[in-house]
Amino acid sequence: MSSLPSLSPTERTTLSRMKIRAVTDRSALYALLDDALICHLGVVRDGAPLVLPTGYGRDGDTLYLHGSTGASSLRLAGGGIEVCVTVTQLDGIVYARSINNHSMNYRSAVIVGEARPVVDADAKTHALHVITDHLAPGSWEHARDVNAKEFAGVSVLALDLAEASLKIRATGPGDDQEDIDANEAWAGVLPIHTVFGEPEPCAEVVGIPVPAHVSGRGKATE
Amino acid sequence: MSSLPSLSPTERTTLSRMKIRAVTDRSALYALLDDALICHLGVVRDGAPLVLPTGYGRDGDTLYLHGSTGASSLRLAGGGIEVCVTVTQLDGIVYARSINNHSMNYRSAVIVGEARPVVDADAKTHALHVITDHLAPGSWEHARDVNAKEFAGVSVLALDLAEASLKIRATGPGDDQEDIDANEAWAGVLPIHTVFGEPEPCAEVVGIPVPAHVSGRGKATE
Repeated sequence: MSSLPSLSPTERTTLSRMKIRAVTDRSALYALLDDALICHLGVVRDGAPLVLPTGYGRDGDTLYLHGSTGASSLRLAGGGIEVCVTVTQLDGIVYARSINNHSMNYRSAVIVGEARPVVDADAKTHALHVITDHLAPGSWEHARDVNAKEFAGVSVLALDLAEASLKIRATGPGDDQEDIDANEAWAGVLPIHTVFGEPEPCAEVVGIPVPAHVSGRGKATE
Repeated sequence: MSSLPSLSPTERTTLSRMKIRAVTDRSALYALLDDALICHLGVVRDGAPLVLPTGYGRDGDTLYLHGSTGASSLRLAGGGIEVCVTVTQLDGIVYARSINNHSMNYRSAVIVGEARPVVDADAKTHALHVITDHLAPGSWEHARDVNAKEFAGVSVLALDLAEASLKIRATGPGDDQEDIDANEAWAGVLPIHTVFGEPEPCAEVVGIPVPAHVSGRGKATE
């Protein structure tokens, strides 16, 4: 991990508050992006902000954004407009002795930059593979391939993980010493876990058991 | 529920794709906002989008946004800048017979408008109460009150739930009939649940059992 380059925050991505929570370890950024399932994609449309949940996948230092949700925002983004991609995982509710020090444990990455449309056929196929492996690992090998019409109908954007910041809060409440000493209220962390339930097959599926890449998907994001 | 006014989408919040997933039932918007724990707040800063995870709470048709995270974006937002607040809950991974029809089940609300700073003391106290009840119900009664210094140090924004859209996907894959008939790949939904774990008390807490408002918080977002 120490051989990974650290993140290179610019003024835009340098945290202005809670610097203690800023993390510059690139491997921690990768871990969050690989754990989370969706991102929130922000663009500017007609001068106003627009934020939409979007599927993605990561390959090295490239983030691929999927065009199936929020297509109008992706078209905008592909036109050379700056994007902000934010990925957040909630890990716990932080109960403090004081109302004011209540908080959340979380990991959040903010990536900014200009996203480019992926148009070369081989590159786009690779990007769809990466996105599929992120959403549903194993499906690329199991399900029917993308045909020509489907391929033409989907859009993919690529965003470099060049300008990124990462914040992690993973500790108990930061209470005042006098509140700790008073010992008048409970304090601690209530963990939050995201888990997968039991697979629910379609009624029309006949004689095909739940494949291992679905049933064995041990954990969701945590 | 039929007595609730429906959402009033403007051109900005009218969905341009997948209209089938648009929901205009205001009670469904309330349910999502009450279920989810955080929102993603989008603002425009220096012409570029910025998206930050933010705590919030809802009272009727008012959303209160908390200033403890992303303070610089909240200050911007308080200055009369348009905001976009997006709240998303993932409910499942949708496995299809074809790669292309893979999807996610989710609920997502997009609320746009001009957020206003809450400065009146009574209104701000009420807003903090609402936000606390959302993050940690029961803590407003259990923990130490906000003192004057803390009160001055926190900022709250209010956003009307006037211009909002809601998308819900909650079904199996939309596969082509010929793929369904071929029956060559498994298809179905892998549910995603967000659950609370066991409370983890701070080491310094002595003789105070985990209160019911923490231990009895039966479900997280689902």
